[in-house]
Parts: sequence; C-alpha cells; structure tokens
Amino acid sequence: MRKYIIGVDVGGSSIKFGKFDLSGELLEKWQIRTDTSNKGDKILENIATSIKDKVKEEEIKGVGFGVPGPVSNNIVLYCVNLGWSRTNLEKEFRKFLTDNDIIIRVANDANAAAAGEMYKGIAKGYNNVVMFTLGTGVGGGIVIDDKLVEGVNGVAGEWGHIHVDDTHYFKCACGKKGCLETVASATGIVKLAKYNLDKYHMRSPLRRFESFSAKKVIDNAKNGDFISERTIEESMKYLAQAMANLTLIINPEIIVIGGGISHAGQYIIEKIEKYYYDLVEPFIAHTNFALASLGNEAGIYGCCYLIK
Amino acid sequence: MRKYIIGVDVGGSSIKFGKFDLSGELLEKWQIRTDTSNKGDKILENIATSIKDKVKEEEIKGVGFGVPGPVSNNIVLYCVNLGWSRTNLEKEFRKFLTDNDIIIRVANDANAAAAGEMYKGIAKGYNNVVMFTLGTGVGGGIVIDDKLVEGVNGVAGEWGHIHVDDTHYFKCACGKKGCLETVASATGIVKLAKYNLDKYHMRSPLRRFESFSAKKVIDNAKNGDFISERTIEESMKYLAQAMANLTLIINPEIIVIGGGISHAGQYIIEKIEKYYYDLVEPFIAHTNFALASLGNEAGIYGCCYLIK
Repeated sequence: MRKYIIGVDVGGSSIKFGKFDLSGELLEKWQIRTDTSNKGDKILENIATSIKDKVKEEEIKGVGFGVPGPVSNNIVLYCVNLGWSRTNLEKEFRKFLTDNDIIIRVANDANAAAAGEMYKGIAKGYNNVVMFTLGTGVGGGIVIDDKLVEGVNGVAGEWGHIHVDDTHYFKCACGKKGCLETVASATGIVKLAKYNLDKYHMRSPLRRFESFSAKKVIDNAKNGDFISERTIEESMKYLAQAMANLTLIINPEIIVIGGGISHAGQYIIEKIEKYYYDLVEPFIAHTNFALASLGNEAGIYGCCYLIK
Repeated sequence: MRKYIIGVDVGGSSIKFGKFDLSGELLEKWQIRTDTSNKGDKILENIATSIKDKVKEEEIKGVGFGVPGPVSNNIVLYCVNLGWSRTNLEKEFRKFLTDNDIIIRVANDANAAAAGEMYKGIAKGYNNVVMFTLGTGVGGGIVIDDKLVEGVNGVAGEWGHIHVDDTHYFKCACGKKGCLETVASATGIVKLAKYNLDKYHMRSPLRRFESFSAKKVIDNAKNGDFISERTIEESMKYLAQAMANLTLIINPEIIVIGGGISHAGQYIIEKIEKYYYDLVEPFIAHTNFALASLGNEAGIYGCCYLIK
C-alpha cells in the first residue's frame, strides 16, 4: 500500500495541510480555518477530520505539526494564538486516530520552516541551516547536523528579542525595548521610517502617506529616497549585528531569509553583508546568504521533514 | 584485555594527558612541554611517544585531542599557537601508531572543555550545555543533545568576539573593537578598571598599584571599593548581554562559567543574573548557571568524551 506523510502548519487564522509521498514530494495541499473558540479545543479534532477526508488512516505514515509557540520534546508548551496551554499533542491527537502506528511529531512553526527550506527549498544540500523570518515579527529556526534545535524551554530561534537598539528604543510586543523585532520586522521598518521622517526635514515620497508599509519604504529606498534608504540601512545593520552574533555562536553554513521582507530580494542581502562581514572578521571569510524559496509552503515541507 | 582512552589537551606551552578507563574515570595524568619549533612538526610524534611510554598500543581504545584552534569534522583548520596550518590530525597521528583500530578524534579545546564539564563535571546529567571560559581571552563551547557544535568553519563558541561595547571601544586581539573579550576577560577587566580609575576621581585601593590583576579588581569589588565594583558591574553586564543573546538563539539548559575569573565564585553569577533575566524575559524564567568544577582537567575529560 502507498503511504503518505501529512504536514500540518497550524496558524492563528488558518491551518495549512500538505499530503506528501515518502520522498517529500508535495502531492496535494489544502487549508481550513482555525477555530480558536473555547481555547482552541476543537482544533485537533478538525485537523483529524480534514485529514481523514483526504487520506485513509492506514495510508498515513505520520503527521507532522508546526505550531505557533514553543515546543520541547514533542510537547507544545503554549500557543497564545491558538488558546492552548501546555499540550501533549501526540497524546491528544491520537484520540482521533485508530491506527497507533502513525508517527506524530510537532515542532515550532518557525523551526519547521527552517527545516522545510533545508529539506526541499533553497538550503537543500546543507546540514547546518539558520532561517530568519522577517514578517510582522522576527523569528527563526536552526538546524544543526540535520536536527532541529528547540532549546530546553522551546525558545531557540527567538532572536527577534535580542537587544540590539539603544538609540530608538522602541517598545516591543514582548514588553522589553530595543529588541531586534522593533527595528527589523515589517512593523519595525515602518516605525524606523516614521522616526526618520521626524528626525530629518528632507523631502521624501513617504510624506505623501499617513500610513505606509515596509514594502513602500524598501521600494523608495531602492529608488534613492534618502530617508527610506537611511531607514533600511539602519534596519539591516541591526539585523546584521544579530546575524553576526549568531554566527560567532553556532557558525551555520547558510542563513536563509524568509518572510515578507525577503521579497525585497538581493537588495537586502547586499545591505546585510555590508555590515555583517565587518563584525565576523577575521573568523569568517564567507557565509552563504539566500532568500527563502518555498514561501508559505516552507512550514508544511518542514512538517513533512519531521516524519520522513 | 583492559582498554583505555587517552585524552590529550594540546596547549601552546604544555600538553596535558589523561589515561581513562572506559567509564571515563581518570586513572593517571601527566604532561609534557609543547615543542613549537619548526611549525610544531614534532608535536604529534612527541605525543605518540609519551602515550606509548605509559600504555601499550593494543590497550588503547582511542585517543581524543583538544587543540587551540578551529576544528571541523575531525580536521584541524589552523592553530596559530602550535604553528599548525590545516592538519588532518587523524591521518598524521596514525603514522605513529601501528594499530588501525584505535579511534582518533579531535575537537577545539574550549569545546572539549564544555564536553568535559558535561561528562564528568558540574554539568553532569545535562544534555544541552554551554561553557563560557573567562581567562586571558573569552571563549567557549556548546553541546546540543550530547553533541559538540563545531560550526562549518569550526568557529562556533567564538563569542569572545561578539560586539557588545560601543562606549569604551577597546581594541581586541582580533583586530576589531568593542568585542566581549575586551571587557569580560581577565585582561578586559583590568582595562576597564584602568579606564574607570581615570574617569572617576575617587579613592580606590587599586590606585596603590601600577599594575594589578583581574583578581585584585574582583577582591576589591567584593570589599565595596566603588571603582572596582563599578568595573565588575559593567563587565558582567556585557557578559550577561552575550549570554542573553545566546539564550535567545539556542536556549541551553545550563551555562557553565570557567577560566580564571570563575574563581570569583557565586559573586559573579549573582552579577550576571542581575542583568541577564531582564534581557531574556518573558521567554526564559530560569536558566541554570554554574561554576566549572574540573578546572584544568576539563579539557582531558572532554577529549575522553570524544572517544567513549
């Protein structure tokens, strides 16, 4: 009988599914809405139902989950966005499966995305991979010797909350000030641009808008607008600093950049490299930087990797 | 026949040997001088001779080496202090052994020390260990899931060269300025104390000496001398910052502090904790900090761990 692997990337608003063959080829994908009512107590049942609609239980080799919260040794510690407190996901999910041979694994979603890029994305062929996800927040994942690094409290990869900025000192969602996330996420880039619009009294296309996106700042920076360029330089300098710290700690083979900001392309890699190499010399002559290639599918590929 | 493991910690001035049983008990230790003449081309032969004086070849299960330079996949990339360039240590060392069944492994010495503390020292029972060595320089090692992390260029654990200081901006041996090592090593603490003696015009017992050691600064800090206390506070704040960064990256179970500065005892752990927890909240409620317990023997225990 053919066997399949199911990858399930559980987000706060939708749950993405991938049906994979045992070589990790994506055969089918679909998604459902996340029911976060009642502390998310229907989520696992809904997932099981959705999977069983598509695949017979006896055809499933395993189900890999990515969840938006810290995970340690197959235990979800909490997921604020789902309403979950500490959850033994394997045990809970087995209530909806009759076949005990099905493997069930769970990882943090950002860690899973890093594994996905290594398994089938831009970092294929590497064994020591770091992925920085630059979206609404800044997160990431680490794979060392083909193995996800979770950390004892499941917070490995939380470099969005490394303290990097004593100048602007913007307040972070975590409660601290000056975290990497406050200056290098999409929202951070906007904050930094608004700060610079106040600080410098020059003309800028950004002044035409009451509110604007990080993409707008990047586009204007590429077009030579001083304030936008200054903003991106500052932001990427902070990011390079965190990446240099990380490099002197675990010295990865490749740093993959994903999330919305990565759509700015090679431009941001050039900006990062400009500051990064000064900080890691003379120890590192070259680090591979690459843009993520799997987009939103990195998560389900990573979930598949947990099982393969 | 009884079998033994030999641990060899190769330093720039002396080479320390340990003869261990297979359970990792240290049965005998000795040392020889390091002959760094002719680019250190006699070192491996001298090591082989010294081992064969103590143990019959057929009794050796393996020889584990710690060397003062970057190592990746059993290849020594370079060791400035030994005069070595890229060295396939296993291949070179086999020239002096007839028994091909002897396992030969090599690691960076700071990484080996971390493994040693995990194997038989203060971090026994933990599987995810970070060791900070605060001596003339600042170095360290990481063990994740019982495995040493080397990094692709062998520079994992080089957090002595993380940029932390934009205030004093002392020059580092690596050529950069503001590295952790310039403010948190024994030499860094002395630099910082001298800076503070210039900056503050208060009385201090330190003014009695033309030159003084980091130990003198720590002793005076414990006795309430303002300038010494201020120096240690600053130094440990920078150290806490690097440790917090590391925690948000790999989230270890325990951080072990070794090297000369660790003799200051619980006092420095209290200083580190004072700054550390503010930087890792709300992600980390508790990290174990401990003082290294094996002293100079951590290296040979770690070399033994490479073979066991």
